[in-house]
Amino acid sequence: MAKEFDVVIIGAGPGGYIAAIRAAQLGFSVACIEKWTNPAGKMVLGGTCLNVGCIPSKALLASSEEFEKIGHHLADHGITTSDVKIDIAKMLARKQGIVDKMTGGIEYLFKKNKITWLKGHGTIIAKNDGGYQIDVKGAEAESVTARNIIIATGSKARHLPGMPVDNKLISDNEGALSFDTVPKTLGVIGAGVIGLELGSVWRRLGADVTVLEAMPEFLAAADVGVAKEAAKQFKKQGLDINVGVKVGEVKTGKDSVTISYTDKDGNGKTLEVDRLIVSVGRVPNTDDLGLGNIGLATDERGFIPVDDHCRTKLPNVYAIGDVVRGPMLAHKAEDEGVLVAEVIAGQKPHIDYNCIPWVIYTSPEIAWVGKTEQQLKAEGREFKPGQFPFAANGRALGMGASDGFVKVLADAKTDEILGVHVIGLNASDLIAEAVVAMEFKAASEDIGRICHPHPSLSEVMREAALDVEKRALNK
Amino acid sequence: MAKEFDVVIIGAGPGGYIAAIRAAQLGFSVACIEKWTNPAGKMVLGGTCLNVGCIPSKALLASSEEFEKIGHHLADHGITTSDVKIDIAKMLARKQGIVDKMTGGIEYLFKKNKITWLKGHGTIIAKNDGGYQIDVKGAEAESVTARNIIIATGSKARHLPGMPVDNKLISDNEGALSFDTVPKTLGVIGAGVIGLELGSVWRRLGADVTVLEAMPEFLAAADVGVAKEAAKQFKKQGLDINVGVKVGEVKTGKDSVTISYTDKDGNGKTLEVDRLIVSVGRVPNTDDLGLGNIGLATDERGFIPVDDHCRTKLPNVYAIGDVVRGPMLAHKAEDEGVLVAEVIAGQKPHIDYNCIPWVIYTSPEIAWVGKTEQQLKAEGREFKPGQFPFAANGRALGMGASDGFVKVLADAKTDEILGVHVIGLNASDLIAEAVVAMEFKAASEDIGRICHPHPSLSEVMREAALDVEKRALNK
Repeated sequence: MAKEFDVVIIGAGPGGYIAAIRAAQLGFSVACIEKWTNPAGKMVLGGTCLNVGCIPSKALLASSEEFEKIGHHLADHGITTSDVKIDIAKMLARKQGIVDKMTGGIEYLFKKNKITWLKGHGTIIAKNDGGYQIDVKGAEAESVTARNIIIATGSKARHLPGMPVDNKLISDNEGALSFDTVPKTLGVIGAGVIGLELGSVWRRLGADVTVLEAMPEFLAAADVGVAKEAAKQFKKQGLDINVGVKVGEVKTGKDSVTISYTDKDGNGKTLEVDRLIVSVGRVPNTDDLGLGNIGLATDERGFIPVDDHCRTKLPNVYAIGDVVRGPMLAHKAEDEGVLVAEVIAGQKPHIDYNCIPWVIYTSPEIAWVGKTEQQLKAEGREFKPGQFPFAANGRALGMGASDGFVKVLADAKTDEILGVHVIGLNASDLIAEAVVAMEFKAASEDIGRICHPHPSLSEVMREAALDVEKRALNK
Repeated sequence: MAKEFDVVIIGAGPGGYIAAIRAAQLGFSVACIEKWTNPAGKMVLGGTCLNVGCIPSKALLASSEEFEKIGHHLADHGITTSDVKIDIAKMLARKQGIVDKMTGGIEYLFKKNKITWLKGHGTIIAKNDGGYQIDVKGAEAESVTARNIIIATGSKARHLPGMPVDNKLISDNEGALSFDTVPKTLGVIGAGVIGLELGSVWRRLGADVTVLEAMPEFLAAADVGVAKEAAKQFKKQGLDINVGVKVGEVKTGKDSVTISYTDKDGNGKTLEVDRLIVSVGRVPNTDDLGLGNIGLATDERGFIPVDDHCRTKLPNVYAIGDVVRGPMLAHKAEDEGVLVAEVIAGQKPHIDYNCIPWVIYTSPEIAWVGKTEQQLKAEGREFKPGQFPFAANGRALGMGASDGFVKVLADAKTDEILGVHVIGLNASDLIAEAVVAMEFKAASEDIGRICHPHPSLSEVMREAALDVEKRALNK
């Protein structure tokens, strides 16, 4: 007889593995299906985020930042060096070591929480008496019954026709994390989060990087002021960013890629690079799950329709993370994983999607929560902006990180904080305070009245909040 | 006739200059008395904090951290260098450049806010018809009338008999920010914030540092768990910290200082060092203000008694910052400066002293807000602790900063957060979220339910909060 589980999760990325742990904490019998195999041929948990996404990219960002700092930013400290070199193989080994530690950590957590890891590809076969039959095809074939299903299969890089990804000359996020040498010239198609982060890594290590973006505006999702500042900073760093570009033919040679494109003014251009990264968005992994076997259809873009509590139209079938509406962010998937486990347990959890922060791990980092200025304007909502630069903060000056600012947008009448936007060092950590404040429906005056340590980067948040009523103290 | 001002502030440190700006924002005529002269002979604003405290020390911490990182922490990134050198004069010039920029910034703010800077030493002479007469003795003598006085004269390093500070062989905080060479051996008397920060700076630059502390416990003000972790980390870094020490005779030779002391087991010892830093606390600057002329007495330790709104026993005379009760922290002084300006304006401001964060800028940094475990135990308050290590955080691993943890203490019955303690990278920024949460009387569950970006150091705060109810997800 097939093994039965209270909860079976398909996919062990950040959404799936967190859902598994939370469900186990709540007393359910839990299995999680995952087929990912790492470069060493070992099956691993963690999905895209841990294996070829957030975690390895942050390791490379740190390494490349250190390398650039030594070469360019230590002279004014009085520090001099010579023979600065980076061993790419060693840098990649460090990255893989961190990935192995983190994925191994999830394996430990699965054992500790008595979660069964079903190794292989899961296909939903049919509704049965106990719930749903799911077949797992791996080294061995197995069939299980799930009283509840959580689909957490994530997403994959969108590939474009005419640009075959071989992860040698033309790479997606996965290949671009593992270049064995620093390309002299690097093209990046798509100026989104992944393109900017990976483009920055290889630029710092010495590549000449050209970014081609189809959209007419740079970083259209970010606040207009932040996007403008980011464009300025990235240009200063040497990233050649071109917006409004129409990419035509892409030809691969023996050691190079030639991209024909039309620039924003309609001029035909050609770019020849040693390597090309294609980062033009991601598509949900929903095509090979057997959804049709139980009558579950995806929308035209491949997403599974769900309600605010990640319920599909079928009883006891849930979907979370990159396969459903909302931003493709690991922490959004995690929170949905916790939510679904608690829904199954009969609790009444809730996610305020307006309070899910965004981060772009460039340098300076970019982070925000809530609405942008252009969104508020489009909604016709009256707001007051406050802004304060890191250049007027003693701690930022001490750290040599005076680029960027914090911008706070508050309701013109109630002073409720509607959005907070940070571009600067440690934006990914500074935004946490703003998220907490917004969850408590704080007014900008609240942040302005709450004590912030001196000297710290967080003082910039306070001053930006005070600036909403034009009473910043150091401006 | 003497010039009259609504508000006269004595002292332009962070308490005084912020009080001046806030009072000016509220429409008062404001003067601020300051006599500080910088090494270049120029009179400057900003007091101890900007000139010889928070700001320059953070500049040196950053420089010395970069220097140590190159020498010891880049090999695993695959980065190699040779001939790593630091030019101390250039490092000090960078520090002074930052100080000059910040103090110049306050001068700009004074002009912008139409605040009169009275250059010289202020003495309160008498009550007069318009308020109080204050004489200012500088390049010229001047007498003004203040309808309200704010005493914000700060503090100075405590010196000990038998240890004459010449800022060559024996230094206080001021001298220790300006050593012209790296001493081979450095003694530090006092393992408080200043001793640890400056000891760390010179250790990273190459000094063998021995710290002698009279108290039997290390970092007694910090949470016991944090203090223990800090002792472990600092020892690993090579700081030789000795507690329970009784310092005896201190003899200065031509190029060295010899300290005789009794160790915690009662054994007589001798320490010979090239330089000695004495950092045994600070005393309020209240001895030369003319307080007696208006019948205002200090307590036996030199502090001016005030109520919760920084009112002295005399009408319209206020005192803030290091000259009154409470921690000697720049941001506490700033908040009192804002509070007094608003009290004078008839507003009803309030400071919750329990929500003033503490930071020690060692590496790893230490920051906390609210109560420590030992305080809660002493109060007999039932609490639940939650703790989570940076070593289990992907971002921390990526940054090579996996030391330390976040600890959350919550009320055992109501779950209200009573204290949050951080030891780790960027603790000074991470604590801001905890302060906001405590000001909103958040429960640990609130932090646990609020979305935190992945991957970020702030996830450790969330996991520590979840751990209060033993439901951390990655532990």
